[in-house]
Amino acid sequence: MPEIRQNPATKEWVIVATERAKRPEEFVKLAKPRHSPRFSKKCPFCPGHEDQTPPEISSNRDEHGAWTVRVVPNRFAALVPEGDSIREEDFDFFRKMPGFGQHEVIIETPLHNASLGRIGDDKAFEIVSTYHERYRCLSRDKRFKLITIFRNYGREAGTSLEHPHSQIVATPIVPLHIRHRLEEATRFFDDTGECVFCRIIESERKERDRIVMEGDGFIVIEPFAARSPFETWILPLEHRSTFGEATLAEIGGFARILNRVFAKFVHALQDPAFNMVIQTAPTNEEGEDYYHWHVKLFPRVTTPAGFELGTGVYINTVLPEAAAEYLRKT
Amino acid sequence: MPEIRQNPATKEWVIVATERAKRPEEFVKLAKPRHSPRFSKKCPFCPGHEDQTPPEISSNRDEHGAWTVRVVPNRFAALVPEGDSIREEDFDFFRKMPGFGQHEVIIETPLHNASLGRIGDDKAFEIVSTYHERYRCLSRDKRFKLITIFRNYGREAGTSLEHPHSQIVATPIVPLHIRHRLEEATRFFDDTGECVFCRIIESERKERDRIVMEGDGFIVIEPFAARSPFETWILPLEHRSTFGEATLAEIGGFARILNRVFAKFVHALQDPAFNMVIQTAPTNEEGEDYYHWHVKLFPRVTTPAGFELGTGVYINTVLPEAAAEYLRKT
Repeated sequence: MPEIRQNPATKEWVIVATERAKRPEEFVKLAKPRHSPRFSKKCPFCPGHEDQTPPEISSNRDEHGAWTVRVVPNRFAALVPEGDSIREEDFDFFRKMPGFGQHEVIIETPLHNASLGRIGDDKAFEIVSTYHERYRCLSRDKRFKLITIFRNYGREAGTSLEHPHSQIVATPIVPLHIRHRLEEATRFFDDTGECVFCRIIESERKERDRIVMEGDGFIVIEPFAARSPFETWILPLEHRSTFGEATLAEIGGFARILNRVFAKFVHALQDPAFNMVIQTAPTNEEGEDYYHWHVKLFPRVTTPAGFELGTGVYINTVLPEAAAEYLRKT
Repeated sequence: MPEIRQNPATKEWVIVATERAKRPEEFVKLAKPRHSPRFSKKCPFCPGHEDQTPPEISSNRDEHGAWTVRVVPNRFAALVPEGDSIREEDFDFFRKMPGFGQHEVIIETPLHNASLGRIGDDKAFEIVSTYHERYRCLSRDKRFKLITIFRNYGREAGTSLEHPHSQIVATPIVPLHIRHRLEEATRFFDDTGECVFCRIIESERKERDRIVMEGDGFIVIEPFAARSPFETWILPLEHRSTFGEATLAEIGGFARILNRVFAKFVHALQDPAFNMVIQTAPTNEEGEDYYHWHVKLFPRVTTPAGFELGTGVYINTVLPEAAAEYLRKT
């Protein structure tokens, strides 16, 4: 019998289709390990090609003055930092506003093939603390309401560039999708006096069968209502509503656990394409009780189709408990 | 300057990224026309392989007794028609219910390569009236709340079977995603006394630049806040909240316009993979003023990535007006 499961944080339903259930291993065959060179002549992010990106926003440099991390505006920015306020141009039926915002790329390393999961924890810390610095810097601009950090890895995950990089988008609006999630989290808090994510952590630690790993102040789970095989969440044990509020020690723990999860994907899942996104409360909701920043990872091992697009209900063919067990043991 | 546009029916925002804007033609090169045989020995939907599907639910037969359309249960059903009510098994924090529902496949034709867009209007009518019959039949079962008809075409759209087929899923729940959309449509009706989709039709007919085609009682548009290049909507001019309420004449018009739109995709877009979904009000909301059934088509020419997954905001690199002009002229 298939199961319909509800995500306790968002109230979204997922169908866990046991009738067409697959063993976690079946997805691993689909992927091939990636092998890339240390340097690519054609890559705009490799050293020596700095003129192929817009002027640097910030960088870390080694003792010889060579960059180790670079932050640049996205050359094909979805939003642009011009204009100083958001006004609807048009109060007609169809509403639009200028595409004001900031869209940056974090070039994580000069090495074309030194991706998270294959690097030391010190290097991982350098990358993740750059996320944190950029978040903190952008969050001081009160025109921005939401700061989204994400990482697309592999062509099937929507990236055209192989060189390890992440992106950060600061938007002047809080999207409807995020609003709905904040509302659900607020409702849970109003009903119970608890943060729904703190409650998820507590419940997962009691049940244990969806835990992939724990340590460094973080817990890694396959969520109860995972939308797709190997959807993975990383949650900080410490309650903080926004990513910007994490302490330096927490950022250190986050870097180590992220590096471990990525290494797990490389080894246990044969290096699949995936998307990562840091989910955080809006910048002006720091210190709130009801939301709790966390990270979602979506390995791209299946294709959402018409049913998912039309209803928002995902059909998952792998039990989250089986996926967690596979990841723990492999 | 990029534009942030709001979908008037759902209030969802889309970024139209003019900084990375592409001409509609650029997407066409990505696709290759499909060429398939009339019959495939390996295909479970081709004639002679009827034993490879579960027992037939219904079929149309020609004068020699050969089937022309077959409806069968999905062999890998996401939901199963066992159990006569929905009860939450567990009132714990994590909620689930049995995966009760019905999941059918409509095998549209005995010919392996006779897909909509390449067939006569009579044949298209046979297929679409089968959609309608199955909808009407399933909607009489009061345990089902929402009936979703969809069609995945091409591997990139999530189908593993090439043989022309559609699917129908009857669910005992109205998913959150649909609920939110019904709420927005209701709010528009409360504010204005109008159906938001009737208003979209009126506005599009006035502005004209997003219309792809019109006729047979339907209008085909590239929506104002299209999420991806060539997202296309087909709307009936006649207000009906559910697909089941369409008259036989309306189903005839729908078949003709659907066949024309699919033919347009084959010719102008070089036969891309796409998903189609019929969006309708829940079965128990027949005759409502605020919702209006319609069809959405999503050619799979781009890949949603981390930003889309994390925020629900899509970045579209083609102006809907340019896409509509391209489709009108090609």
